[in-house]
Amino acid sequence: MRNIKLVIQYDGTRYSGWQSQEHEKNTIQGRLTAVLSRLTGEEIQLSGSGRTDAGVHAIGQTANFKTESAVSCEELLSSLNRYLPEDIAVLSAEETDLRFHSRLNAVRKTYRYRIWNSSVPNVFERKYLFTVEDALDEKAMREAAALLCGTHDYKAFSSCRRGKKSTVRTVESIVIERRGSELDLSFTGNGFLYHMVRILTGTLIETGLHRKQPEDMTEILASLRRENAGFTAPAQGLCLMSVEYEK
Amino acid sequence: MRNIKLVIQYDGTRYSGWQSQEHEKNTIQGRLTAVLSRLTGEEIQLSGSGRTDAGVHAIGQTANFKTESAVSCEELLSSLNRYLPEDIAVLSAEETDLRFHSRLNAVRKTYRYRIWNSSVPNVFERKYLFTVEDALDEKAMREAAALLCGTHDYKAFSSCRRGKKSTVRTVESIVIERRGSELDLSFTGNGFLYHMVRILTGTLIETGLHRKQPEDMTEILASLRRENAGFTAPAQGLCLMSVEYEK
Repeated sequence: MRNIKLVIQYDGTRYSGWQSQEHEKNTIQGRLTAVLSRLTGEEIQLSGSGRTDAGVHAIGQTANFKTESAVSCEELLSSLNRYLPEDIAVLSAEETDLRFHSRLNAVRKTYRYRIWNSSVPNVFERKYLFTVEDALDEKAMREAAALLCGTHDYKAFSSCRRGKKSTVRTVESIVIERRGSELDLSFTGNGFLYHMVRILTGTLIETGLHRKQPEDMTEILASLRRENAGFTAPAQGLCLMSVEYEK
Repeated sequence: MRNIKLVIQYDGTRYSGWQSQEHEKNTIQGRLTAVLSRLTGEEIQLSGSGRTDAGVHAIGQTANFKTESAVSCEELLSSLNRYLPEDIAVLSAEETDLRFHSRLNAVRKTYRYRIWNSSVPNVFERKYLFTVEDALDEKAMREAAALLCGTHDYKAFSSCRRGKKSTVRTVESIVIERRGSELDLSFTGNGFLYHMVRILTGTLIETGLHRKQPEDMTEILASLRRENAGFTAPAQGLCLMSVEYEK
């Protein structure tokens, strides 16, 4: 038995996410599993580091699967890229420790949310950006971002319905960078709740538009109530950048 | 009467070009003209700096039109970007000299051809790149590019059918730049024949793959025969970067 680790890139525009809750067929995981099963002649169970929502992209999604097939990693990589649709690519395939699990062993993830802050549309990257035409106060956004980092109960920033699982997470950093008309928000943490990055982004955008004040963040966190946070920024601006594991 | 100059950006993927030879409706020029006519209430004649083929993109296409309407340039710009489809954007609109003509007054154009030189697909920019999986010898390509610059009869590098018009052009520079897996070819000159940039690109790719030698370029130019040059590289990798005018 071998354990193979894949690093995967995708344009999520036309998929119902990495793995859909409703067992829908049109998922990234489904496309990968179909090709892997054909290549190995086995029924492959592919585990991803976590689900990405419908329309969310990935530059460094990580997944693993077990196989008894002898197909080399080089052959796997080249066959995957030959048979996958053009909006999914596998960057690397390598044999790893049998105990490795892409979700359970992940210690850190980074997501980036790309905002196009201009009244002139970006025609080339429009599917990877969310446009905010009005000026954004970056200083206010950075102040708010600082208050949103740390170890907190992020229940107010999540669409989780069930109340059983812990909603405490650690956000290590939220980095806000301007590149011309683009404003990028990079979130690094040990894990993120359902919709958490998109609600953090929506709340930071509202702060940048002066509809919320930076100092409101502490109260929103403490309230644990979703309705106090900002809107859920659209999926298309979000991208899973990397998943890190212990050495 | 006023003369308005526009700088336009488009993702050419789903259009039959700037202006189709067959009077087809689905052109960039057609979309712009429809919106401009509605905004001004006049039948607008929009002149572009030149045609771009079906599937070719533009970052700095330039066009102009005359109007008797009093609508301000700011309003034009904002209305154009509101009513145009999301794959066409207008970067600027300004009133200019009545004698200005975007095609006749152009003194220099720059096109960029983007090659993705890797066996791992680029999922995000796939519509703007042409993939060549095999290694490209950049040194050989640069040697060939140097021989292709200058003032020459570029008939061998064109799909022009009629023989009446001059096929002499000046190519000022062909700059080859590598950025990771991407290899970009930038062509600057006083004008380019039909398909010329795409045939120059195809010929340089064949040189990079050692199917042609750099020193073959002189002979190909002198032959004036299309069949001696390389293949026509696909439209999707090509982008009109800028059009320059005398001050």
